[in-house]
Amino acid sequence: MGVTMDQLVSLAKRRGFIFPGSDIYGGLANTWDYGPLGSLLKGNIKRAWQYYFIQQNSYNVLIDAAILMNRQVWVASGHVGNFNDPMIDCRACKARHRADKLIEDELAKRGEDRLVDGLPFAEMERLLQAYDIRCKDCGAKDFTPIRQFNMMFKTHQGVTDDSSSEIYLRPETAQGIFVNMKHVQRTMRKKLPFGIGQIGKSFRNEITPGNFTFRTREFEQMELEFFCEPGTDEQWFAHWRTFCYQFVEALGVSKENIRFRDHQKEQLSHYSKATTDVEYQYPFGWGELLGVANRTDYDLRQHETYSHEDFTVREEGKEPFIPYCIEPSIGADRLTLAVLLDAYEEQTLEDGDVRTVLHFHPALAPFQAAVFPLSKKLCDQGQAVFDKLSAEFMVDYDDSGSIGKRYRRHDEIGTPYCVTVDFQTEEDGCVTIRDRDTMTQERVSIAELSSWLRAKIAFTPLR
Amino acid sequence: MGVTMDQLVSLAKRRGFIFPGSDIYGGLANTWDYGPLGSLLKGNIKRAWQYYFIQQNSYNVLIDAAILMNRQVWVASGHVGNFNDPMIDCRACKARHRADKLIEDELAKRGEDRLVDGLPFAEMERLLQAYDIRCKDCGAKDFTPIRQFNMMFKTHQGVTDDSSSEIYLRPETAQGIFVNMKHVQRTMRKKLPFGIGQIGKSFRNEITPGNFTFRTREFEQMELEFFCEPGTDEQWFAHWRTFCYQFVEALGVSKENIRFRDHQKEQLSHYSKATTDVEYQYPFGWGELLGVANRTDYDLRQHETYSHEDFTVREEGKEPFIPYCIEPSIGADRLTLAVLLDAYEEQTLEDGDVRTVLHFHPALAPFQAAVFPLSKKLCDQGQAVFDKLSAEFMVDYDDSGSIGKRYRRHDEIGTPYCVTVDFQTEEDGCVTIRDRDTMTQERVSIAELSSWLRAKIAFTPLR
Repeated sequence: MGVTMDQLVSLAKRRGFIFPGSDIYGGLANTWDYGPLGSLLKGNIKRAWQYYFIQQNSYNVLIDAAILMNRQVWVASGHVGNFNDPMIDCRACKARHRADKLIEDELAKRGEDRLVDGLPFAEMERLLQAYDIRCKDCGAKDFTPIRQFNMMFKTHQGVTDDSSSEIYLRPETAQGIFVNMKHVQRTMRKKLPFGIGQIGKSFRNEITPGNFTFRTREFEQMELEFFCEPGTDEQWFAHWRTFCYQFVEALGVSKENIRFRDHQKEQLSHYSKATTDVEYQYPFGWGELLGVANRTDYDLRQHETYSHEDFTVREEGKEPFIPYCIEPSIGADRLTLAVLLDAYEEQTLEDGDVRTVLHFHPALAPFQAAVFPLSKKLCDQGQAVFDKLSAEFMVDYDDSGSIGKRYRRHDEIGTPYCVTVDFQTEEDGCVTIRDRDTMTQERVSIAELSSWLRAKIAFTPLR
Repeated sequence: MGVTMDQLVSLAKRRGFIFPGSDIYGGLANTWDYGPLGSLLKGNIKRAWQYYFIQQNSYNVLIDAAILMNRQVWVASGHVGNFNDPMIDCRACKARHRADKLIEDELAKRGEDRLVDGLPFAEMERLLQAYDIRCKDCGAKDFTPIRQFNMMFKTHQGVTDDSSSEIYLRPETAQGIFVNMKHVQRTMRKKLPFGIGQIGKSFRNEITPGNFTFRTREFEQMELEFFCEPGTDEQWFAHWRTFCYQFVEALGVSKENIRFRDHQKEQLSHYSKATTDVEYQYPFGWGELLGVANRTDYDLRQHETYSHEDFTVREEGKEPFIPYCIEPSIGADRLTLAVLLDAYEEQTLEDGDVRTVLHFHPALAPFQAAVFPLSKKLCDQGQAVFDKLSAEFMVDYDDSGSIGKRYRRHDEIGTPYCVTVDFQTEEDGCVTIRDRDTMTQERVSIAELSSWLRAKIAFTPLR
């Protein structure tokens, strides 16, 4: 019996992981704010990505491009033309609907499970007629024709308010990488194959955000665009597909809850030669955690056409080519959600007590350790241990309530090691470390505390 | 003789620190993308902020709130009503101007140095007349009345496009902290005084962005809101004023290039009791690096009025009060720019050669170390040293060109330690480490390399 979404959302709010956004004003349609523990957890997950994808990998470098980009980028990428959902209005009550969802819901009611998303508009209009579909809000059957609704957030930059100043919030970080590809290759003296990674916010005006932080209009991506020679793309696709799975595993997510889903030919985006999702078993079902796509030379070719930048590689004895691109794209919020869900356990102890414990990988936990002075009299020694550890780690200091209560409090937020300073500490220079998962204790000397903890929280390299 | 902006912008582009945004499409009005080295540098600066302001400070916790917030937040904060610049249009050529700047420029031409920013519109209208000011673009003297131009970026969320769906990109991260203040205090069991910090993007539709990354429409802030009891606010203001200065110093920025600027009473924002900037001596003059403001109870009081959340503290024997707030607000991009400028040196060596060197604090440098195999024959040993170090540090591997060339290359990007693996390494298990600043060399055993480097790059705690 796994955790339910209600249990997780409740814990997340109660213990300071994730709060509803703009809560004191009644919120804002499925926006969420990371609280003290959530911001540390998500920060550690982003750091883990940077560790595995950039620091440990001599093929790859990092960039950090602006969210606001020249409008032409999105013309070239196809987002201005194609990043649309099918919308209709009810003429009677002015309600706006997503046509494909309206049809799918009606079909579902009739027990027909059919994918309408992606059908031509004419076919959707026909289905609306054929199934006598009515407005969900008022019951009328008086719709406008289906129109395209672009999912990019628009804004205006500069002092004029006309269409020339219209720009978009980026719907993906990937394009910031493509437009910088030549600058990066030249300045970092990179030869193919090489990758460029980026962590940052993206925005999509989703019609139906929901499922907590799983689908939000503002979200954070960790994307790598890995450039290689055509012909080697399938090998590299296989490489990154495996690597991403291992990455999720290395963060401590259990194998039973992750699986590959290879997209069928007819599901592929027009630019993609192959796509695999790694899915997580959320309480609401299997859902995307990350995707690895073989984007071919689609993006660079588009930018070559629109910008006249030359992306063609010319090497002796070879046909000129535009590099292919393999894209492992990970949702930082979805991965954070999966890590939280996967860590959650309500555990019945030998004495019949129940404890809630988050079994985070020690490097991902908001606090790597908590320091407890056994008595108020020991707060100087406790503070000294805190100062020593906090020079290198994120550590909490907790001197309120019984030690048992402090253990429970830190189990519930996933602190892997609780360090108690007691009356013997001054004599023997040692502290007692209690392990979150096994609840066993060991005595460690303060002099060796940092190196002891450093070894415990290290990630296993993926080579 | 310091570095010029041209020199810095050129180095930044040439070596992969900062590229013009959307460059292959002709850019987008003063947007900039952080390249491989710039994203590492800026990331390290953000990490240093988190180290000093959060990790080392048991008063403070972190959050990470959404960029998109409920519109009412900006009504309460005063941004919808007051976050304006004075705009006029030329009726003849339709050009749009910022009225105060138009007047200031004309006065400057006449040798009068006068601050017009902040004057009432009627007074600006009078000055336009009195000085016979004309349109900069067409020379006509036919202006519309002065109107207010709100600097927040607007967008629409959801499927409807009317005013009810209008939201803003946040112009500061601070409000995300105020609206979460009660959630944070409760979940983290905090008593006054305590602080909440946040790092994140903000957006202001500046009329005149410029000076490289100093003033951009999209920028990143590192803000702390420190809540305390009224009456203690002046002490805490003094504390954070000093702390911020020491923080900048701890990052290695030289004292000669930073100074305090206390705002005069008439310069203070309506909500502020006291404000001090820490300024940096940029090549274009002294300019703001960070600001510390005593925001009093203005923000929480506003949110109490608009949201009906209760921020009032009631303690026995005390008058009820709303906490005061001290705000140290640091521009991550400005600090990155200052760190880059301050690190830059063109140094003439004893032999007459000139080297460009960036004297970054070792913890801020994009690479903490670079590993050089002396010969191609040593690449296995070199790779082993790289693997060892990159498990903990951001390290470059460089095996091309002479060792002298590799030193110069890494001097120019500020790598503090170059680690050479030579033919003796296999025998004695040691490598040669060359110091960027002193150019001296020392022999260190590979077994001790990690702890040697860890000690070198540690920040000095500020207590």
